[in-house]
Amino acid sequence: MQFVLQRHLSLTLALAAWLALINPALAADPLPSWNAGPNKQAILEFVKKTTDRSSPDYVDPADRIATFDNDGTLWVEHPMYTQLAFALDRVRALAPQHPDWKTTQPFKAVLDGDMKTLAASGEKGLLELVMASHAGMSTEDFETIVKEWFATARHPRFKRPYTELTYKPMVELLEYLRANDFKTFIVSGGGIEFMRPMTEAVYGIPPEQVIGSSIKTQFEIRDGKPVLMRLPEINFIDDKTGKPVGINMYIGRRPVAAFGNSNGDLQMLEWTAAGDGARLMMLVFHDDDKREYAYGPADGLPNSPFGTFSQATMDQARKSGWNVISMENDWGRIFDFDQ
Amino acid sequence: MQFVLQRHLSLTLALAAWLALINPALAADPLPSWNAGPNKQAILEFVKKTTDRSSPDYVDPADRIATFDNDGTLWVEHPMYTQLAFALDRVRALAPQHPDWKTTQPFKAVLDGDMKTLAASGEKGLLELVMASHAGMSTEDFETIVKEWFATARHPRFKRPYTELTYKPMVELLEYLRANDFKTFIVSGGGIEFMRPMTEAVYGIPPEQVIGSSIKTQFEIRDGKPVLMRLPEINFIDDKTGKPVGINMYIGRRPVAAFGNSNGDLQMLEWTAAGDGARLMMLVFHDDDKREYAYGPADGLPNSPFGTFSQATMDQARKSGWNVISMENDWGRIFDFDQ
Repeated sequence: MQFVLQRHLSLTLALAAWLALINPALAADPLPSWNAGPNKQAILEFVKKTTDRSSPDYVDPADRIATFDNDGTLWVEHPMYTQLAFALDRVRALAPQHPDWKTTQPFKAVLDGDMKTLAASGEKGLLELVMASHAGMSTEDFETIVKEWFATARHPRFKRPYTELTYKPMVELLEYLRANDFKTFIVSGGGIEFMRPMTEAVYGIPPEQVIGSSIKTQFEIRDGKPVLMRLPEINFIDDKTGKPVGINMYIGRRPVAAFGNSNGDLQMLEWTAAGDGARLMMLVFHDDDKREYAYGPADGLPNSPFGTFSQATMDQARKSGWNVISMENDWGRIFDFDQ
Repeated sequence: MQFVLQRHLSLTLALAAWLALINPALAADPLPSWNAGPNKQAILEFVKKTTDRSSPDYVDPADRIATFDNDGTLWVEHPMYTQLAFALDRVRALAPQHPDWKTTQPFKAVLDGDMKTLAASGEKGLLELVMASHAGMSTEDFETIVKEWFATARHPRFKRPYTELTYKPMVELLEYLRANDFKTFIVSGGGIEFMRPMTEAVYGIPPEQVIGSSIKTQFEIRDGKPVLMRLPEINFIDDKTGKPVGINMYIGRRPVAAFGNSNGDLQMLEWTAAGDGARLMMLVFHDDDKREYAYGPADGLPNSPFGTFSQATMDQARKSGWNVISMENDWGRIFDFDQ
């Protein structure tokens, strides 16, 4: 009897889903945090035409690949990249074991809270910090360290865990695409093993669909147990021209949709746009310093070393017909905790 | 009315599936090309206990990762790796554009059909052949070259396309695992961009689930169009200790089942075995020279430079309780075209 009731229920649900399918007006808005406008419309139309078998723009489910930058596209990247905040915290935590750091740059700058000297140490200095904080342990130990940090660290402005600082409209977009048989990937300049411990819970993206920068690892037997040790040596930088390279290396096919927010995403969007058939290229533009941050230097907003969006990138986006998302105008809600 | 009939039909099918589920004897054999025996039994039991929610060995679907070597595990690797046959054919095809190859080794050996001199050129010689035949074109052009080769090349003994020389029992195993929500990956020493053009059609494995060795690529704009050019430089060797490294880099979690056939798979099986919970490690042993090939040097079979399976690997497999598949005894049928 219960079997019959369950059947009846699932028939009713199937009928409701079917009605929603043939009459979209009956379906709930899949992107409730997006304000009505050309960008929301572009997403809805792209999904409609690529999933409708009778459309000339129909895309086979196997080819529905959508790639997303992470920092500044899916979550906050100011006042600094989350991973940099992690690296600085790690350097502070490890300092007692490294007395020489008190007198050696760039470590001294971190311990003194001297961000000006730290910035002056440039890429070389940042690389030293990353190697000191990200290498020298097994992959398992690093995962534990990252998870513990995510559980305790708080963003300086929002006073919340970084994992709560994801953009609600983008999470809705990820879910909407997956509900339409798109496979969603992260393609980020951030560290692949820094992101993987949180992407499944936060974005619904499993580790094997996360592409990022990496350091080399080495297989060793320690105490009779195989481990992968993290070496202080760059393996791959997944930024700028590295993004199409990473997409090809990890996914092996070209995305039909790509989402970014900075100069580092330009080549990923170019690579996506160059394929045949329907395409969707979007850039998130941070123009809302009330609810989040505003930076460019495109359109006269202040320059930023984190997520730089140059005027040249803005010009290219407009010339190429890529959609530029205004956080202020397009997003009714930015964070899940917003009212 | 048709709707009602279809519903009735699908209810009947659902009922049949449900009956099959509660009474496995009613279900069709998912591995018909496998002979009854401890290896077939090990597979069936592993899948049963990892997918049964009431079992202490239950594995969450997200963690059902199974990795497969390709050459010698999923398809034929004798008398030489398929990719080497491709490289030699490419050198012959490109020779008219390289008159110097007539007098330069290892190219001269290829053009003369002098396999002894070719073998004597060792790894360095092979690498030169690979670079000459696999680099210098865009990823798209290389894909076209590979597809055309697969369409025309024939195996010297079986006189069939290489894509027909897959092992039927292993294809059934891939399908059986996927039907039980396992995600199947290839983890091969072979070239990633050599395999991807055929893995979906032949194994049902999409390009993003193929891990292999690779050369570097570089993003360039050519004639206003972005391309990825293949450079004559090694990026990653996915063999031996490289296999766990590749698994971590691409998948980001540890497999619960791994399948190989040679010394090159040892570390992948060790890495898989070292995880907590139920595990399945299997090695295909080539001991059937009537229907395929027989080589070791384990168990006194002749040594082979392609897919070497040493006595030490056999000893480790037996000591560790890994399953060693005898092609002669465990497989009722090897190829799809076998009677």
